[in-house]
Amino acid sequence: MSLFFEDFQVGAVGETGHYTVSKEEILDFARRFDPQPFHVDEEAACRSQFGGLIASGWHTMALCHKILVTEFLGPDSGSLGSPGVDEIRWLKPVRPGDTLSVRTEVLAVVPAKSKPGGLVKFRYLVHNQNGETVMTVVGSGFFQPRDGEAADA
Amino acid sequence: MSLFFEDFQVGAVGETGHYTVSKEEILDFARRFDPQPFHVDEEAACRSQFGGLIASGWHTMALCHKILVTEFLGPDSGSLGSPGVDEIRWLKPVRPGDTLSVRTEVLAVVPAKSKPGGLVKFRYLVHNQNGETVMTVVGSGFFQPRDGEAADA
Repeated sequence: MSLFFEDFQVGAVGETGHYTVSKEEILDFARRFDPQPFHVDEEAACRSQFGGLIASGWHTMALCHKILVTEFLGPDSGSLGSPGVDEIRWLKPVRPGDTLSVRTEVLAVVPAKSKPGGLVKFRYLVHNQNGETVMTVVGSGFFQPRDGEAADA
Repeated sequence: MSLFFEDFQVGAVGETGHYTVSKEEILDFARRFDPQPFHVDEEAACRSQFGGLIASGWHTMALCHKILVTEFLGPDSGSLGSPGVDEIRWLKPVRPGDTLSVRTEVLAVVPAKSKPGGLVKFRYLVHNQNGETVMTVVGSGFFQPRDGEAADA
């Protein structure tokens, strides 16, 4: 089931997704978007304060979003895009072979003034396979209701 | 020249990078990380409120970061990673063929208490070829000085 505006309730929490990130994916993303030594060069990464290759924080963010779109919101959700993000914190490195899941929490639901639907604000916590929180995000999105007309804030 | 902690001064501004994003790149990123109809399906995108295919906001963010790492900080900078981001705002869609550049501004420089180097806080504005601001970001990074020892906050 895909989610629409009326499906979000303040305080609702859930845990969704399991995605294992490979060394090849970490290297591929970083070569394209974040070619710093500790993301693209295994030997340099071993000499760095991280003690080995770690994923770009933007790769972790993109994987979190992938999990949310494909496994939380669903393929035909009422999502109408996002005005932005209020906070991202990278708390622990993500390393090759780590398996990520996302805890979702609905912080606020704000109906639009002039149209059906509105804005939903979320907190996301990304966990690894050891239950450690590697990243936290506070962000929001516009959603239309299941019966269809577009919303804005 | 790559940038190190001592190179950042509060209030310093610059404009850096020109990167033209193709339709194929927009589709490829979105299929991997943000498979919503207005990012991966040209026909659905034309029927959406966006009137055509637009890049995932996370793709715009990743391209901004690529420009910063490769053209602002430089390949051998003193970057030691980032604790997080305080704000992202997606103001206008990025469409196939758009050319992005980044305006950088140093908001704060905070020396670490126990080690050389420290934290630098930035504002980034991403512009398109028409001079429109498509995204703004407030984020920060740890940097070591040019002479080398690692820093933390």
